[in-house]
Amino acid sequence: MAQPARHVVGVDFGTLSGRAVVVRADDGTELAVAEHAYAHAVMSERLGATGAPLPPNWALQDPDDYIDVLANAVPAAVAAAGIDPSSVVGIGTDFTACTVLPVLADGTPLSRVPAWRAAPHAWVKLWRHHAAQPHADRINELAAARGEPWLARYGGRISSEWEFAKALQILEEAPEIYAAMDRLVEAADWIVWQLCGAELRNECTAGYKGIRQDGRYPSEDYLAALNPGFARFAAEKLSPAVAPLGARAGSLTAQAAAWTGLPAGIAVAVGNVDAHVTAPAAGVTAPGRMVAIMGTSTCHVMVGERLAEVPGMCGVVEGGIVPGRWGYEAGQSGVGDIFAWYVANGVPPEYHEQARARAISVHELLTELGAAAAVGAHGLVALDWWSGNRSVLVDHELSGVLAGMTLATRPHEIYRALVEATAFGARRIVAAFAGAGVPVSEFIAAGGLIRNGPLMQCYADVLDLPISVIDSEQGPALGSAMHAAVAAGVHADIYAAAEAMGRIRRDVYQPDAGRTSAYDELYAVYLRMHDFFGLEQRDLMRRLASIRERASEHGAP
Amino acid sequence: MAQPARHVVGVDFGTLSGRAVVVRADDGTELAVAEHAYAHAVMSERLGATGAPLPPNWALQDPDDYIDVLANAVPAAVAAAGIDPSSVVGIGTDFTACTVLPVLADGTPLSRVPAWRAAPHAWVKLWRHHAAQPHADRINELAAARGEPWLARYGGRISSEWEFAKALQILEEAPEIYAAMDRLVEAADWIVWQLCGAELRNECTAGYKGIRQDGRYPSEDYLAALNPGFARFAAEKLSPAVAPLGARAGSLTAQAAAWTGLPAGIAVAVGNVDAHVTAPAAGVTAPGRMVAIMGTSTCHVMVGERLAEVPGMCGVVEGGIVPGRWGYEAGQSGVGDIFAWYVANGVPPEYHEQARARAISVHELLTELGAAAAVGAHGLVALDWWSGNRSVLVDHELSGVLAGMTLATRPHEIYRALVEATAFGARRIVAAFAGAGVPVSEFIAAGGLIRNGPLMQCYADVLDLPISVIDSEQGPALGSAMHAAVAAGVHADIYAAAEAMGRIRRDVYQPDAGRTSAYDELYAVYLRMHDFFGLEQRDLMRRLASIRERASEHGAP
Repeated sequence: MAQPARHVVGVDFGTLSGRAVVVRADDGTELAVAEHAYAHAVMSERLGATGAPLPPNWALQDPDDYIDVLANAVPAAVAAAGIDPSSVVGIGTDFTACTVLPVLADGTPLSRVPAWRAAPHAWVKLWRHHAAQPHADRINELAAARGEPWLARYGGRISSEWEFAKALQILEEAPEIYAAMDRLVEAADWIVWQLCGAELRNECTAGYKGIRQDGRYPSEDYLAALNPGFARFAAEKLSPAVAPLGARAGSLTAQAAAWTGLPAGIAVAVGNVDAHVTAPAAGVTAPGRMVAIMGTSTCHVMVGERLAEVPGMCGVVEGGIVPGRWGYEAGQSGVGDIFAWYVANGVPPEYHEQARARAISVHELLTELGAAAAVGAHGLVALDWWSGNRSVLVDHELSGVLAGMTLATRPHEIYRALVEATAFGARRIVAAFAGAGVPVSEFIAAGGLIRNGPLMQCYADVLDLPISVIDSEQGPALGSAMHAAVAAGVHADIYAAAEAMGRIRRDVYQPDAGRTSAYDELYAVYLRMHDFFGLEQRDLMRRLASIRERASEHGAP
Repeated sequence: MAQPARHVVGVDFGTLSGRAVVVRADDGTELAVAEHAYAHAVMSERLGATGAPLPPNWALQDPDDYIDVLANAVPAAVAAAGIDPSSVVGIGTDFTACTVLPVLADGTPLSRVPAWRAAPHAWVKLWRHHAAQPHADRINELAAARGEPWLARYGGRISSEWEFAKALQILEEAPEIYAAMDRLVEAADWIVWQLCGAELRNECTAGYKGIRQDGRYPSEDYLAALNPGFARFAAEKLSPAVAPLGARAGSLTAQAAAWTGLPAGIAVAVGNVDAHVTAPAAGVTAPGRMVAIMGTSTCHVMVGERLAEVPGMCGVVEGGIVPGRWGYEAGQSGVGDIFAWYVANGVPPEYHEQARARAISVHELLTELGAAAAVGAHGLVALDWWSGNRSVLVDHELSGVLAGMTLATRPHEIYRALVEATAFGARRIVAAFAGAGVPVSEFIAAGGLIRNGPLMQCYADVLDLPISVIDSEQGPALGSAMHAAVAAGVHADIYAAAEAMGRIRRDVYQPDAGRTSAYDELYAVYLRMHDFFGLEQRDLMRRLASIRERASEHGAP
């Protein structure tokens, strides 16, 4: 007689919503998924609690929206799966990162404390909060000047998106919030804290976003040189407990059981990051295989046997993707976000009408029309920096460029140029890895953009690499469920879980030699523009950004 | 008893239509105007006669559309003015340039000859036919290598839009057409030929577009070095007769009287160019005052007492604007065309709906929304090269650039950046004149864009110059009517006619010191991008253009 099926739940906390998936723990079969949108979405213009305007480049969230995901999406997924909730043996989670919030010692977010509710710095800073660039600049300049050993582990630059930049911004712009917070905690760890009552940091975000290398944070001496009040940041505002991915963080509390409808006491896995957790979901735990999670932005993760310092990568962390191996991360801050911006801001009525008449999306229409032409027939090259550049330039004050327009240029040509720009950005990253002795032999795509066949083919042609595709609509949530299965002891470790539960379709897209060589020519133009705006004259876009900020503050003269 | 009023008719042949204006000859009062659109408009995708596709960058017209303007707009204007046609004492015309057509010895366009009707090279090449860039390149390289004395009179570069480039293209791509044409004639001269039966060249286009300097064309030796078959081009394919502006070309023929309804035998003025004829229409015949005719493109004309060689100007021609003085010309190939492109290709439905609801144009809506913000608040800088760059780079393979986009960028911000880009382009031209010892103390605007107040204010702020505005909706046609009045002997010369009939409102827009200094910062970024794409890496956009052309020819791989 067969053993009754054991199930695990994975919950993926994205930028705008959370998704829960119910998975069979032995073989990874996905039974049902449910999504719950954050009521407050992303607050970038105004603070929801007061309606007060926010400065440029801010992006906040409400942590209670995350609890609502536990209370809505998890029971809905379990109900849709038609399983007995008592068959669920573990829950795992992944989050956007670096998404951080200031909390009291018991985990209460400062944004819930009446005294701080009107203070923007009391709220969750979403990964794409980009207002800490001046702080990141100082972090980088000082680290470079002092020769801090950890700097090269981050490609030579710490992003303004990361924990120390965001923390320094709080200290300097809202010292009262900095003083009031007992901890600055990754949302990835906060949600686990809410599930099992245990405060600990996962090795992944502690390394990639928290500058933890070789078991240590940046020295007090260095932090004091940034700002004397910052000296004890790592020692006092970060949890000292760090746990490896796949470990059991604790057991589901009665409160969390009430939220989720799952049995109290089941395994809760250590927190993880949406991108990193997707590698094992695609069955990838071995070197040479780059996994790109392509959605609003793209994260590239890769496992390595040895340490290499790749210029412009986001980071390399031991155990950052799978325990016992080095995990590499790189990223593109804007990908699907750029296409969405274009459809919302740049596409004239007749395209919308045509899409409506054919009952397809404007994205589909633009993709189809754009794909009909030969490579380069549009004469356009774009720099994919609408949201700045994470890799390899690590500068969120860079901005988008579109070049080559004539009076004959049509919207679907611009759309295709934007898609190509993101592929060129990916190629630049692959080249940086190869140049540092970490060659990429296969490109594995996950995330929402895998549904766009012409886009995937464009990437294969631009990269001159075969592209495999994750065989799941819910890569991160599946990966979280796999970590739940490991935490619950169903599989011995994440390597075994990836083998048993991972899902991939190999070599779905093959590069075409003719198109690849045509793209080589466009890529050469891209590179020249990339180096001009991104390196030689980086100052130009910083000036634009600074003019923009001053003008926005002072209003029309 | 007062003398009965004498009238003159001016006809302005534009890119898409012709306009006739009836003017009182003594004081320039405009009585009525009528417009007639060209049935075949601009043929850039297909040849109207056969439907055959045209290569990229072509732009053709049908000369019979010009005759239709004489036959429709002129009688309509006379009827609307309510005057007795017998009170009309002269007719003057102006045309786009360099707009040329191959004709037989009697003036019959080759496009009317059945044997040549299917040949694209038999038709009128409109000013913005840009397919002769390789020919212009060779003209320039050879002239520079040989130290041809006339090259500096054209800012160091002959445009692909001009007569010799277009003629060389005909010779090399369609030698049978070249052989069959008895003349290659400016449309400005062809229409005068049709009106009075006299074949002659006006001093203006012969100089600016036909490389006639100090009474001579480029030498046969030089032309032979370009192509042996081209040696006798100037000697054989151009009319030897050249006449000054304001002269009487001849008398209205019976045929032309039948078309226009005007009395046979009245004065027909020598042909002119739409831009140049506008200077006296605004009353400008003196140095230091730049007249900009701002429409789909912008032409800048200025009178000078002495000869100076301005880098990147279109040309300097003795008698090119008013007899006896040097006339300077510079230009921007795309201005209103770029805004129209953007409205047609880049503005999403909600803007169209909002404009419709308020019963204003999309241009007006975008202008109003864009003008509400402070200078630089959009963080954008564009290069206004959608139609190439006429001055000061003289390269029609340059193309448009838009830089600084973020996910927060909105369409009205892009529209404003495009307007500003054209103002920066104008500033670059003014700077080139000042740098060559031809300072500009006043900027006088004419053309359709003078109706856009925020745009005019933007130009005043960017240029840091007061802007005066022509006080006529029909500047070129008024200028043509003034030349008709001179040809008919109503006024002694064009200086007297400009005094009596010219119309201007002085200093309508004054620069604002705060905005001017804010624009200085954006202009510095513009200049850096201008020099990168236009000078240091001019090759980049040429590569894009050449990739585009190859891809368009060969189709999708």
